[in-house]
Amino acid sequence: MNNFVFYSPTEFVFGRNTEQQVGALARKHGAHKVMIVYGGGSVVRSGLLDRVKQALQTAGITYCELGGIQPNPVDTKVYEGISLCRAEQADMMLAVGGGSVIDTAKAIAAGVPYNGDFWDFYIGKAQVTQALKVGVVLTIPAAGSEGSGNTVITKLDGLQKLSLRVPEHLRPVFSIMNPELTFTLPSYQTACGVADMMAHIMERYFTNTQEVEVADRMCEGVLKAIITEAPKAINHPTDYGARANLMWAGMVAHNGTCGVGCEEDWASHFLEHEISALYNVTHGAGLAVIFPAWMTWMAEHHVDKIAQYAIRVWDVPVSDDKKAVAMEGIRRLRDFFHSLGLPLTFSELGVEQPDIDRLTESLHRNKGERVGNYVKLTRQDSREIFQLAL
Amino acid sequence: MNNFVFYSPTEFVFGRNTEQQVGALARKHGAHKVMIVYGGGSVVRSGLLDRVKQALQTAGITYCELGGIQPNPVDTKVYEGISLCRAEQADMMLAVGGGSVIDTAKAIAAGVPYNGDFWDFYIGKAQVTQALKVGVVLTIPAAGSEGSGNTVITKLDGLQKLSLRVPEHLRPVFSIMNPELTFTLPSYQTACGVADMMAHIMERYFTNTQEVEVADRMCEGVLKAIITEAPKAINHPTDYGARANLMWAGMVAHNGTCGVGCEEDWASHFLEHEISALYNVTHGAGLAVIFPAWMTWMAEHHVDKIAQYAIRVWDVPVSDDKKAVAMEGIRRLRDFFHSLGLPLTFSELGVEQPDIDRLTESLHRNKGERVGNYVKLTRQDSREIFQLAL
Repeated sequence: MNNFVFYSPTEFVFGRNTEQQVGALARKHGAHKVMIVYGGGSVVRSGLLDRVKQALQTAGITYCELGGIQPNPVDTKVYEGISLCRAEQADMMLAVGGGSVIDTAKAIAAGVPYNGDFWDFYIGKAQVTQALKVGVVLTIPAAGSEGSGNTVITKLDGLQKLSLRVPEHLRPVFSIMNPELTFTLPSYQTACGVADMMAHIMERYFTNTQEVEVADRMCEGVLKAIITEAPKAINHPTDYGARANLMWAGMVAHNGTCGVGCEEDWASHFLEHEISALYNVTHGAGLAVIFPAWMTWMAEHHVDKIAQYAIRVWDVPVSDDKKAVAMEGIRRLRDFFHSLGLPLTFSELGVEQPDIDRLTESLHRNKGERVGNYVKLTRQDSREIFQLAL
Repeated sequence: MNNFVFYSPTEFVFGRNTEQQVGALARKHGAHKVMIVYGGGSVVRSGLLDRVKQALQTAGITYCELGGIQPNPVDTKVYEGISLCRAEQADMMLAVGGGSVIDTAKAIAAGVPYNGDFWDFYIGKAQVTQALKVGVVLTIPAAGSEGSGNTVITKLDGLQKLSLRVPEHLRPVFSIMNPELTFTLPSYQTACGVADMMAHIMERYFTNTQEVEVADRMCEGVLKAIITEAPKAINHPTDYGARANLMWAGMVAHNGTCGVGCEEDWASHFLEHEISALYNVTHGAGLAVIFPAWMTWMAEHHVDKIAQYAIRVWDVPVSDDKKAVAMEGIRRLRDFFHSLGLPLTFSELGVEQPDIDRLTESLHRNKGERVGNYVKLTRQDSREIFQLAL
């Protein structure tokens, strides 16, 4: 087990009607004026935005608004938000939505007190040393951004999709998680969220770090729970228990609870970021295509942990033929993704003729000569994995 | 799943040599003068206390000392500590030890700014509204006090052993966890710690709350990891991986990670507190005796979750005869405890003729007419469980 720091100081307030506490929580964490960040019309139509405003007013908190955040959130909205926040002198970001909204709020939170271009943080030109506080009302369980210090933004000019990780400053101070807010999620979006949270766990699980039994068992346990609960949520969108389990699973998948002490991989995420940046596909759908391809390549090149995953998560019988065990686990994962309505190939993702050379070049330009840790991928390796997703 | 708040803001710094960071961490969390609380001679003999002092001095932090905390910590040391802390004007408690030391430090931290008797908090006469900060250097994985807001103190006059839970004020601000510090733990103490952390998980796992699949799977996963790692640590005391896994398991067992959204039980702990208060046995040893007795009673009266535990944690084959499944799980748990050198009966615990009437009366005087939640125990039920431990 590697040395690590686990520090997850977010206050998670979970359950029915908890959005009513947003004013009191913002106040408790020191806000006077919040900037509400949100996406499209669903939080308006559902009345959630009005309930949030009402709760803020009751607590004596004023607010301004930045709506219109899209999936695969872009830098232009961040610039807009930074300007608005400075003009309005808001002192806390309040994200009402899913990962794209939260990630945008975090980027604005880091950008407001910084004199330069916020993009400097994403390209490693500058470090975040202070940020406005971020609060969250979560509506989509997927990205885990409600519990993490991570944010992913796409620069429209050049379609560069980059992630930034600053747990010290960008973890939300509170996250309100009411599973009822996810009852109206379309099943495809629910499924994409499931793929995303499973991927967050698997990026940590596939590690060469030895003697990590607690981390392994926690990862396997949460994966098993997701596999049980996801079909229930898809088939019965108002099944509170299923929605609640998925919502909490999405958080623990990404706040560091899973995978403590492990060297993490993240190659599948980086491979996928290239796909969604270039073709604007949903991140979770892209992961459903690329993660099994990555695992298939690993079954050939470094089978050990893939086989353990097949046995412990998918109940594949133990056998001396580790590759066969691994491939059966991958088959079960793919069947599971398909049963949720997720794509398994570029073609099913709507990308008939992916430009694999361009994807590969962009990946290694953004992430260096070697990508990932479980096996450090060369350009040739990455190309082969993209091809396995055809 | 029940509504819940999960808020675990402790900064956990885990791994080899991490005690060297104690000065920097105390400083980061605002200390100027700390009161070092510790137990017997082992932290002195091992040189740990000197290393801690050195790290504090390097960071410019002054300190005073309160040594001599015993297992089943008592109120008299708390009073002594409160007086000393006030006289020395220390502004942070630094616990260097295991649960007894940390629990004493928390009691002092709550007592120093309070005008009345600190025992008021434990008997529910007053509420903790402020406390000094507590930092920890952990040397015994067992109580989970390094990540919880809980403290258990025994009042010598009357041998009343009571717990207090104030997560808002009594969670440590940081906990340093170096598994190497546990290499010298005697195997019996390691085993008692294992029983304690397993009990913390099982108190949460045995619940009537439905639709808690993530909580169940995480509990089962950590239990499975403990079952794998504990024999390694007992047989090879310097096995870093085994020690590291046990140390982290002991923390997640009790900081709320396991069992979110579940109504918890805690009857076994309350039954055991009566035993250790009256006979001064080690808490973990008492739990090894009483928890299987409690489960055996439950196999008769409310078998469902006991059977699920047997199947998922101990790999007992599924069968329609749930009671038989449950009893086989309990048998495997008892065999496991025995293999670690733990007692299974009052007699093995060194209590040849327990005064069951007195234990029962004291339990219900302290905890009310009904104890626990999975089944709310009457006096007669409690008496039967004590008798099952003969």
